[in-house]
Amino acid sequence: MNDTSAVTVTVGVIGGTGYTGMELLRVLGGHPGADVRFATSEREAGGASVLPGLELRPAADADLSSVDLVFLCLPHGSAADWATRALAAGARVVDLTADHRPGSGREDDAVYGLADVAADEVRAARLVANPGCYPTGVQLALGPLQASGFVAEGATVAINAASGVTGAGRSARRDLLFAEVANDYRAYSLGNEHRHLREMRHGLPGLDLVFQPHLLPVARGILETIYVPVDEGVTAARVRDVWAESWAGHPTIRLSGPGRVPSLADVVGTDVLALGVSDNRCAPGLLTVVAALDNLGKGAAGQAVHNMNLMMGLEDTMGLRC
Amino acid sequence: MNDTSAVTVTVGVIGGTGYTGMELLRVLGGHPGADVRFATSEREAGGASVLPGLELRPAADADLSSVDLVFLCLPHGSAADWATRALAAGARVVDLTADHRPGSGREDDAVYGLADVAADEVRAARLVANPGCYPTGVQLALGPLQASGFVAEGATVAINAASGVTGAGRSARRDLLFAEVANDYRAYSLGNEHRHLREMRHGLPGLDLVFQPHLLPVARGILETIYVPVDEGVTAARVRDVWAESWAGHPTIRLSGPGRVPSLADVVGTDVLALGVSDNRCAPGLLTVVAALDNLGKGAAGQAVHNMNLMMGLEDTMGLRC
Amino acid sequence: MNDTSAVTVTVGVIGGTGYTGMELLRVLGGHPGADVRFATSEREAGGASVLPGLELRPAADADLSSVDLVFLCLPHGSAADWATRALAAGARVVDLTADHRPGSGREDDAVYGLADVAADEVRAARLVANPGCYPTGVQLALGPLQASGFVAEGATVAINAASGVTGAGRSARRDLLFAEVANDYRAYSLGNEHRHLREMRHGLPGLDLVFQPHLLPVARGILETIYVPVDEGVTAARVRDVWAESWAGHPTIRLSGPGRVPSLADVVGTDVLALGVSDNRCAPGLLTVVAALDNLGKGAAGQAVHNMNLMMGLEDTMGLRC
Amino acid sequence: MNDTSAVTVTVGVIGGTGYTGMELLRVLGGHPGADVRFATSEREAGGASVLPGLELRPAADADLSSVDLVFLCLPHGSAADWATRALAAGARVVDLTADHRPGSGREDDAVYGLADVAADEVRAARLVANPGCYPTGVQLALGPLQASGFVAEGATVAINAASGVTGAGRSARRDLLFAEVANDYRAYSLGNEHRHLREMRHGLPGLDLVFQPHLLPVARGILETIYVPVDEGVTAARVRDVWAESWAGHPTIRLSGPGRVPSLADVVGTDVLALGVSDNRCAPGLLTVVAALDNLGKGAAGQAVHNMNLMMGLEDTMGLRC
Repeated sequence: MNDTSAVTVTVGVIGGTGYTGMELLRVLGGHPGADVRFATSEREAGGASVLPGLELRPAADADLSSVDLVFLCLPHGSAADWATRALAAGARVVDLTADHRPGSGREDDAVYGLADVAADEVRAARLVANPGCYPTGVQLALGPLQASGFVAEGATVAINAASGVTGAGRSARRDLLFAEVANDYRAYSLGNEHRHLREMRHGLPGLDLVFQPHLLPVARGILETIYVPVDEGVTAARVRDVWAESWAGHPTIRLSGPGRVPSLADVVGTDVLALGVSDNRCAPGLLTVVAALDNLGKGAAGQAVHNMNLMMGLEDTMGLRC
Repeated sequence: MNDTSAVTVTVGVIGGTGYTGMELLRVLGGHPGADVRFATSEREAGGASVLPGLELRPAADADLSSVDLVFLCLPHGSAADWATRALAAGARVVDLTADHRPGSGREDDAVYGLADVAADEVRAARLVANPGCYPTGVQLALGPLQASGFVAEGATVAINAASGVTGAGRSARRDLLFAEVANDYRAYSLGNEHRHLREMRHGLPGLDLVFQPHLLPVARGILETIYVPVDEGVTAARVRDVWAESWAGHPTIRLSGPGRVPSLADVVGTDVLALGVSDNRCAPGLLTVVAALDNLGKGAAGQAVHNMNLMMGLEDTMGLRC
Repeated sequence: MNDTSAVTVTVGVIGGTGYTGMELLRVLGGHPGADVRFATSEREAGGASVLPGLELRPAADADLSSVDLVFLCLPHGSAADWATRALAAGARVVDLTADHRPGSGREDDAVYGLADVAADEVRAARLVANPGCYPTGVQLALGPLQASGFVAEGATVAINAASGVTGAGRSARRDLLFAEVANDYRAYSLGNEHRHLREMRHGLPGLDLVFQPHLLPVARGILETIYVPVDEGVTAARVRDVWAESWAGHPTIRLSGPGRVPSLADVVGTDVLALGVSDNRCAPGLLTVVAALDNLGKGAAGQAVHNMNLMMGLEDTMGLRC
Repeated sequence: MNDTSAVTVTVGVIGGTGYTGMELLRVLGGHPGADVRFATSEREAGGASVLPGLELRPAADADLSSVDLVFLCLPHGSAADWATRALAAGARVVDLTADHRPGSGREDDAVYGLADVAADEVRAARLVANPGCYPTGVQLALGPLQASGFVAEGATVAINAASGVTGAGRSARRDLLFAEVANDYRAYSLGNEHRHLREMRHGLPGLDLVFQPHLLPVARGILETIYVPVDEGVTAARVRDVWAESWAGHPTIRLSGPGRVPSLADVVGTDVLALGVSDNRCAPGLLTVVAALDNLGKGAAGQAVHNMNLMMGLEDTMGLRC
């Protein structure tokens, strides 16, 4: 895959058999400027990774000093030590877990890698906390609205989110068995208690957010339907204008035209976030914003590679599916 | 199936091959007090209905005067004539289409059959407009809250609804093909324009509703996640109390306990509406209400049979799956 | 549910939270002559069973002597002890595990409960081994053909089977997670090594069987497509005649007409086995037989209740969904 | 996408909105040596194709003389005229319909483009009939076995095939609606009557084939489980050896190792055919061969682009997902 004319960055993946790690290997496999030197798995060590020709090895055998950058695709809670080790070995780090995100207690050690808004900080970073899937959509949808003063003062923004099952990880759990999920659709993390809220609030200070996620009977994809109370005179057309201005030159953010919003199928398998917005008849003070992204793409591996590109001086969206 | 001790009601079904008509025949097949005399289909006339032993016949061959009650399971827009004919033939009518619902222009000719709140009117009715699937959940969830003065004055209630595909009928449409719906999840009827809104507003006058439906990749079931701005001091516990009082003695309405809300799988294949509610941390002024029902059960055939029971003097929930 | 005119049988279920146990409780819940006294679960003890009003309890608390009949819905390998205990307590037993089936080493202690062919033995039995799901379809499809001498001498019968995921049980396994099964279809138990083969061969001695199961991305249902080499002159029409004769008066066996075979959707949620057969153009010596059943219905709980009915002197198919 | 070092071929697609046409556009969009000049649709003319930046236009507006090669992705039966026109305009043609395949009556006008066995003929062809999806798997699996004399003389080979729904096209049909297909699995084309049989028999003369397809509740992918009666001494290991020899240097054919066969998920979204084989215990005379391919990939668009590469002198598998 590697083009000799491209700068080649050497990378390693700690945790190559979860859904995120596998997707990351797939994206890297199609990246013309990245060379994957190792991918780890304790349980499947010696077996094949999803990247043709790359064998999985125990993490202990990974030579962190042999690569420019290490991706951490581990269960939440176990990334901090690996980050320390990789940095000590001279590698840069993109941590795809929640362990260095806002609210983790370690957020000061890392740059929050919301690539579309923090490119400069990311370029200079040695450790990047890759954002969560839900917060990526919410922040990129609402950030420009808040900056424009569109959101009604003191109002509550209800975020009705729905995600495919890979968002819950690949551990064996009864509630995620096929026969439990197929033909069902269920709310979870009731009570505005989802871990991702801290991250959203950090990126959207001053907004009063209620976030209710649901589990969809699909493997992948997130759709967030956001009910935004707006000030008088703020319309869907104005929102589209503000987005167009904010996200011009951002090929991983795609905007829908009037009367249209994106659906899951528009973004699954891509590294794109798609945004749409609608006015509501008889309710001029409430706009409905829809954000769609692949939880494994733009919501994880895609943004991680975006961050890698920035950190290593490659073209911003090299290798991304957009 | 018929128990000799039960009053036996004779019924006919105009339109026995759509999803609603088929489900109605299934419910009636298990009903100890109903005897189905005919079910019609133009296209499949002469073929078997889903009710063992009952052959489909052209509607022109249906003897409307031979039955106590006729169910109309037709495409929206074509029920008014059939209702007139059936009434003239001396039969009572339950119309499962939208043609006599609030906002249809013919609502004055019929009793709106929200069975759990209008039992007395339904008992006396000759023509009942069976409610829509979405409005059934919304009205039974929010009605008691509004009556108790819980909903904040002037506030907008956002209803995020998701439905299985049978809600869209059984006509051949490209956008409803398996390969278009599987792995997708999409918003539709953008802009607060859904036909069911008139019906919801009629049942909940004074509430400012925004209704955004979505299409789920499942065959059946509706989940409505409703964001309700409430007055100070109104909590999920108080909502549960009000529901418990309103719906005591209503076996087709099931209430979830604290910390729980129903999911699609809880209600698919039943004639039950399940309700749950949650407080939201950091947002005391917004409660999240979840209503789940089978669009073909409580949302159509189940409520139609409930209405039949009331109209014909049978036990209220005879034959219902609850 | 109980009709006072029906004989009432008291039963208990050891293992009430697996897919089989839950389905059994659902069937028993609709059975007019059965009264479920207990259902057990270690893990969910104290919680609600799927049978409204029946609480789960630890197996140690189940009073085996309080019931007429005990159903064993346990993981394979753990039923023998429970059978011994229940028999000692005076209860009859229907074992839904493989532990007393042909090939188990304990088959001599039990009657093999293929209800449609062994009704007399079952009536007299104290311990019944409920057949496996796959063997139920294969034996009832092929038994009459073999008895009629239709199958070509020395020929191999290839059984291509496909099953929904509940057939694999409800234990948490990564390979059965939603995201692993959805959009996939895979062969398993390669090499003619499936445990159910011993059972099929016992019921169809002299036939040379090759059995290849596959996993379908559905929750429930089995379809077996069977390629049967037949003697000259044996046609689909003759097979249908033989089936019609063998299965007359068997309401849980349904036969398709000429040119038709059953599909999964015809049988899911029922206790029926549906059979169809087709000739093959240009291959007169090979018939294609299709058997469809719900692995949880006729393939497990339905047949178990059928056996209970026989053992306890109730009407054969009381409470069954057919 | 285009690499300046690659030969660039100009192409057009007649029929860009069916499942095959859309997949072809996706493959071509990632092909470094192809430049798509037009894609047609009558119904969606003026709208966007799936290839970013390419607008759909009516077929009448397509300038056939402007491209090197035209792909025909039309309903079966309507391709012959377009082929004539395109050839007359000087373009080469790859016809993805059945209209020039063996048994069509027009097979003599075209080269049958089973790319892995007819590369030389394809290179020289002006009109290529792209093979059907099912026959591609069957012929590449069984061809080498037949050539090696492995298949038992006079024996019948039963092919149990299962396909995702996109194989049936994108026309609106009630039987392909989501709610009809989900949770179902059904046999179709009973009686050894499938159109693809002529094509398989042409490629495997002398073999007695019984072909039974089934519809899977998935969008895409084909799995063919083939029961092959073999001569004494022919084992799975020998089959693997023969395949390894025949398909060495064929990157779009992937072989499974001992004890393994491919599943649908291994090939969906790729242009690969995966093959595996197993011995059967107690049935040494019957091998089970499994062939898996994406009906839209190797079974349609992938092989079409493979043929284009051969015809236009590009690297054989350029742009293919393998």
